[in-house]
Amino acid sequence: MSAEPLIPNRLDDENSALVILDQTLLPNEVVYRALHTNEEICHAIKTLQVRGAPAIGVAAGYGAYLGAKAAPETDFDGFYAHFSAVRDALAASRPTAVNLFWALRRMDEKVLSMKTCPVADIKAALKEEALAIHREDIAQNRAISEYGLSLLKPGDGILTHCNAGPIATSEYGTALGPILLGQEQGYGFKVFADETRPLLQGARLTAFELHRAGVDVTLICDNMASMVMKNGWVQACLVGCDRVAANGDTANKIGTSGVAILAKHYGIPFYVLGPTTTVDLNCPTGADIPIEQRDPEEIRSLWYEKPMAPPCKTFNPAFDVTDHELIAGIITEKGIARPPYTESLRKLFE
Amino acid sequence: MSAEPLIPNRLDDENSALVILDQTLLPNEVVYRALHTNEEICHAIKTLQVRGAPAIGVAAGYGAYLGAKAAPETDFDGFYAHFSAVRDALAASRPTAVNLFWALRRMDEKVLSMKTCPVADIKAALKEEALAIHREDIAQNRAISEYGLSLLKPGDGILTHCNAGPIATSEYGTALGPILLGQEQGYGFKVFADETRPLLQGARLTAFELHRAGVDVTLICDNMASMVMKNGWVQACLVGCDRVAANGDTANKIGTSGVAILAKHYGIPFYVLGPTTTVDLNCPTGADIPIEQRDPEEIRSLWYEKPMAPPCKTFNPAFDVTDHELIAGIITEKGIARPPYTESLRKLFE
Repeated sequence: MSAEPLIPNRLDDENSALVILDQTLLPNEVVYRALHTNEEICHAIKTLQVRGAPAIGVAAGYGAYLGAKAAPETDFDGFYAHFSAVRDALAASRPTAVNLFWALRRMDEKVLSMKTCPVADIKAALKEEALAIHREDIAQNRAISEYGLSLLKPGDGILTHCNAGPIATSEYGTALGPILLGQEQGYGFKVFADETRPLLQGARLTAFELHRAGVDVTLICDNMASMVMKNGWVQACLVGCDRVAANGDTANKIGTSGVAILAKHYGIPFYVLGPTTTVDLNCPTGADIPIEQRDPEEIRSLWYEKPMAPPCKTFNPAFDVTDHELIAGIITEKGIARPPYTESLRKLFE
Repeated sequence: MSAEPLIPNRLDDENSALVILDQTLLPNEVVYRALHTNEEICHAIKTLQVRGAPAIGVAAGYGAYLGAKAAPETDFDGFYAHFSAVRDALAASRPTAVNLFWALRRMDEKVLSMKTCPVADIKAALKEEALAIHREDIAQNRAISEYGLSLLKPGDGILTHCNAGPIATSEYGTALGPILLGQEQGYGFKVFADETRPLLQGARLTAFELHRAGVDVTLICDNMASMVMKNGWVQACLVGCDRVAANGDTANKIGTSGVAILAKHYGIPFYVLGPTTTVDLNCPTGADIPIEQRDPEEIRSLWYEKPMAPPCKTFNPAFDVTDHELIAGIITEKGIARPPYTESLRKLFE
């Protein structure tokens, strides 16, 4: 079974619209929405219709362009005031998304570099910049996918956690990139997708994306990873990352560190995949990465027909930190960093 | 907050009824049901209104007595034919429950040992036997709880997986026994309950039971155990068991082996608790324990308002096997077995 690829973001310039895949309806419905106003785009980011740090960055680039395009002002100052309001509204839509700020800063710098140009030219340049952000994300994912695939053999069993696939990025994805590229090349991987409680990104998104692409995917509960590894079914673990510290400690979706410990116990290599924009050399170790705590109801009652737990305390961190000693390699668009990471990560930026 | 203890099984002899706690309605409703016929009792076991191997054994004992009590026959052969039909129906209600067969065999042996006695005397003896099964389970749980508590210190953080508490047994429970006994004695434990996907026994039952008993309990998703341990919040892991092999390998709820590997990584002792009836000296290692595979819909759609995954493959084992090398002690009513288990478990039966 294979199907049309899912496109999280697409510019429909003719109709002045950003067309997004509404990820809140997955896996039950594939619905695209054409967003015409900045309010609609901010709302889509806020409500997670668009999610995944790179995909949010791409949406923000297009949002900034479309907002600028609609500006009636023809003088720079008037235009820039209009653009700034659009930019600030987008920036407020998901305050913790690094890629969102990065994309908006890039669009802002483009405007400021063209102060003396006609507004029509600035608008044209912003369109190119937004398309470039999107294009570069695709190229990065492709490079990450190729580096990742070089570590795998046909027929390998692969375990993944959470979702870092095409709909979180632009084509291929990061952690799912080598799997989807390998699928195109007939590698015949056997993939195990952790469902990833409490938000179930593994079930709703990863299993959905891989199943749709015709990959041999088996959905498991997070607590089944140990048995799957013990059975000899896993030759590599591939996960994404939200932030990589200078020493290689990696923050990623809650549960990632547990997968890495199991992989070490069973002698299975554990790889982290992500663009170098996720590597933060100013952050010395994982202990310096703040961890977001989320609503107890995500554990107690979200998705369910009725509450599945008493009104007791919960601990609901969005991320955990995987110790660098558990990581066999960090795969970026610039190559594969190996231990010791303090040296190898720095070299990627030279 | 503390509340009346929950009683999974209680004989109401005056009204010829077995009063059970309907566990399918937890954690949202506490409902007791008076069951008068053997059909009602079989149905309650089949539909998991009564669950937990020891609790099923106790229910089967009472069911066999109540079925015998209702027999109109006054000659032994007629009475035994009636009793046998009751016994066979109960045995068919949950075909994999070891304690169910054990309790029914014990009731059957009692009848056969009294062939020459008046039927009224046999009925009286069956009542005593059923009450004895219940009483002995309580005493065993109490002994397990005391041995377990001897390993813990006031204020300890304890992580548990699945449910082996009072409603799965009779008072105290096995894995939850030391926690509840310690609660009575002011130990002030801080307990972390894995929710235990896919059936959520940790959320629905363990968190519910402990919260109700006033224990400081924090519900977590299974994949959060690593971070809780890393934070230094756990001084011991306590889990139940479904079958212990002669070498100490232990089958228990899926996910248990992963908890044990994390505990080893973080240097935390991992204890298994259960009655010696769960130790199977005829089973050499965990590799000889068959593992039940369950319905994919338990992962994909159970409890949910709509499916949370595509119609892809799943792997849904009910249990996994924890390697004996990961277990610091096996706590039974006859004492604590320590490695090497091949010797220490055998000694418990001497």
